[in-house]
Amino acid sequence: MASLADEKYELITRRLQEVLGGDLIKAILAEGRTPKCYWGTAPTGRHARAAHIGYFVPLTKIADFLRAGVEVTILLADVHAFLDNLKAPLELVAHRTEYYKKILLAVFTSLGIPTSKLRFVEGSSYQLTKEYNLDNYRLCAIVTEHDAKKAGAEVVKQVESPLLSGLLYPGLQALDEQYLDCDFQFGGVDQRKIFTFAELYLPRLGYKKRAHLMNPMVPGLGGGKMSSSDPDSKIDFLDAPEVVRRKIKKAFCEEGNVDENGVLSFVEAVLIPISQLRIERAKGQTGADADEGAGATGSQRPFVLEGASEGTVFSIFRKEEYGGSLHYASIEQLKEDFKERKLHPKDLKTAVADAIVQLLDPIRQAFEKDEEWQKVEKLAYPDPNAKPEKKKKASLACLTVQNGGKNAKPADGAAAGEAASTEPAVPAEGAHSAAEAAKQQETSS
Amino acid sequence: MASLADEKYELITRRLQEVLGGDLIKAILAEGRTPKCYWGTAPTGRHARAAHIGYFVPLTKIADFLRAGVEVTILLADVHAFLDNLKAPLELVAHRTEYYKKILLAVFTSLGIPTSKLRFVEGSSYQLTKEYNLDNYRLCAIVTEHDAKKAGAEVVKQVESPLLSGLLYPGLQALDEQYLDCDFQFGGVDQRKIFTFAELYLPRLGYKKRAHLMNPMVPGLGGGKMSSSDPDSKIDFLDAPEVVRRKIKKAFCEEGNVDENGVLSFVEAVLIPISQLRIERAKGQTGADADEGAGATGSQRPFVLEGASEGTVFSIFRKEEYGGSLHYASIEQLKEDFKERKLHPKDLKTAVADAIVQLLDPIRQAFEKDEEWQKVEKLAYPDPNAKPEKKKKASLACLTVQNGGKNAKPADGAAAGEAASTEPAVPAEGAHSAAEAAKQQETSS
Repeated sequence: MASLADEKYELITRRLQEVLGGDLIKAILAEGRTPKCYWGTAPTGRHARAAHIGYFVPLTKIADFLRAGVEVTILLADVHAFLDNLKAPLELVAHRTEYYKKILLAVFTSLGIPTSKLRFVEGSSYQLTKEYNLDNYRLCAIVTEHDAKKAGAEVVKQVESPLLSGLLYPGLQALDEQYLDCDFQFGGVDQRKIFTFAELYLPRLGYKKRAHLMNPMVPGLGGGKMSSSDPDSKIDFLDAPEVVRRKIKKAFCEEGNVDENGVLSFVEAVLIPISQLRIERAKGQTGADADEGAGATGSQRPFVLEGASEGTVFSIFRKEEYGGSLHYASIEQLKEDFKERKLHPKDLKTAVADAIVQLLDPIRQAFEKDEEWQKVEKLAYPDPNAKPEKKKKASLACLTVQNGGKNAKPADGAAAGEAASTEPAVPAEGAHSAAEAAKQQETSS
Repeated sequence: MASLADEKYELITRRLQEVLGGDLIKAILAEGRTPKCYWGTAPTGRHARAAHIGYFVPLTKIADFLRAGVEVTILLADVHAFLDNLKAPLELVAHRTEYYKKILLAVFTSLGIPTSKLRFVEGSSYQLTKEYNLDNYRLCAIVTEHDAKKAGAEVVKQVESPLLSGLLYPGLQALDEQYLDCDFQFGGVDQRKIFTFAELYLPRLGYKKRAHLMNPMVPGLGGGKMSSSDPDSKIDFLDAPEVVRRKIKKAFCEEGNVDENGVLSFVEAVLIPISQLRIERAKGQTGADADEGAGATGSQRPFVLEGASEGTVFSIFRKEEYGGSLHYASIEQLKEDFKERKLHPKDLKTAVADAIVQLLDPIRQAFEKDEEWQKVEKLAYPDPNAKPEKKKKASLACLTVQNGGKNAKPADGAAAGEAASTEPAVPAEGAHSAAEAAKQQETSS
């Protein structure tokens, strides 16, 4: 029988595409210690609310970490978000940071994932300190342009006239590992070069090398056709059921095509793992924390219909006249049926929309009960059609100097990578311009 | 008759090669206000003591600023110096910073230049603050690699694999203008691209555009043949008379060659201006400060021999049998004679060595009377032949975190430009590696 350490390691690393430095994590677990993880996201948001359900992908994996007792630090990269779009005043970024915190916590709560070992850290709380900046300078004094560019190649847009910030990102993201005191950093496999850069350079500054856990890249629900200018290409956490259904209906999901299919990918990366989590929990397999599931909100029913055989992780409703419902014990079986056109896109979409509506229901309810969150939402994502306030010309500079501490959200680097990491087809959250974001989406999906 | 403002403007700008934004300075003077100047130097020192008599070039010009009542800030770029050579621990940089302060003050004192409007600022006192770093990030989010590279082209070594620090320097040097609150920055004309970069980008951050005053580039005493690996190519401020004479004897000073002649250049940029200063002062022309000259140490005799006609600014002793002493009212006359071989290199060298010995005498005396300075000198430039102390591996990182405030010397950028600026053929002080420094000397001299 596998040891507890082995079980935890399996939970921590399952479904990942790649693990660098796994022995490091194994050693920590073998000593009975608690591994510490860092995952970063930039609270940006050019189009309406930026936190969309693509976040379920990394969050589903982070749920595994938390269930295995890992101490998880979520970096809310406010400094990066500010730099991302210098037009967004610091105050706005601060509101967005609060909004992200609310959403992310609501997601974990809805899934019944214990959050006692989850902490949020704002980048501005340490990325503007003397120590951090000195380290940034030290790094810049040993990192070549070439290495920095290579490290950022997949997450920083390769334009003809790149900005200096793009060259700083890899180094800053490496320093975050040290300053957030993690044992491993988690991200999408698009972060691989940033991660190996960190493994190379942190030891050169006298800091320890961290492990790196990488999620596969998951295409967006729009499949290859997603456009950042189309608001329907992203499903917001707070979208109403009818909006979710409308967006899913428009999603690219070609009959028989399993290679380029964001809907299938979402089933694989989010819906089946959550379904499995619920099945496991119903059997009393609660991970490291015995309280797991206790605080779950909303339905905790797996995405499995009545009458499904044991082992089913995802069901698709179908009227008897069309052959009756379908039950799958794995994504492979489901893909196989789809490829052979035994499963029609319309039926798949309906099942996926049902599941998403069920997932979002407790989150919407939490939002509707939380007046503070509603206030933050209004401040973070003001109505774009409302008359804009007049801006003072040097407002950024003024804000910077006037706002001390946590309210002085400001500037930094790693963005591109961080937000991007593990979102389905939107590795653009952290990209440092809207144009870049759009371009990244085109090329990555 | 010229107004006081006109006179001051003339004093501030005389002998410069180029002035950008002179109207800005004129306007300040016209309002009866005091212009504020910033000049930076990095307290580096790979070879013995790094502050050599090439510093007389910028200091002679800064003397003009002080005489015109300008408030002068000398930035001791300790953070840059630290980054320059990450092997030099922060403590060492701190000692070198102290040493530089002592030397620079001693030079002004020896020349009788009032220093009440002179202040020294250590880069570490503000370059690691939250505000400065946020501004650095903001700058990096709008400056392209291309622009940064272009700006640093003359002062940052163009190697095949350049370091990121080289790209940061122009921006950091621009920010220094804002953070040191100057009206104009002074430097060598090799800083021109850095200066125009600052003029372009500071306003984009909401800060005002500054004026830029540029000294001509002055070749080193070694002429075109100077090598950084030859300790005899630089005359240290504390060199004994016999050492000065030996080094001057070895200086490249080819008969008839006025185009590539560091000895002639030194006469032009340092000795004649100082001689003129003394002549003016003897006539009661004391600049803005009536106390000027009062505290001067050592001989205040102009470099003019007895029997010279009125208007002479530089004399060269020669025995009667060789035609008797020569007296010049301008550098042009002196160069003309040298070109026509009426003035022999040996006689020129002797006169220059005499003048330098006279200039350095009060500085050496100040050093010998100042026990603290002697202690600082030993700490700043330890005997390279002494057995080195064992270094702790992560000592830099530890020091950084432990030393607060002024003792935490550390890291930054603008180096290349700053130290370089106005030294005779040693635009290598701030360059960010020894190899680079050597290369710069080769190409710039």
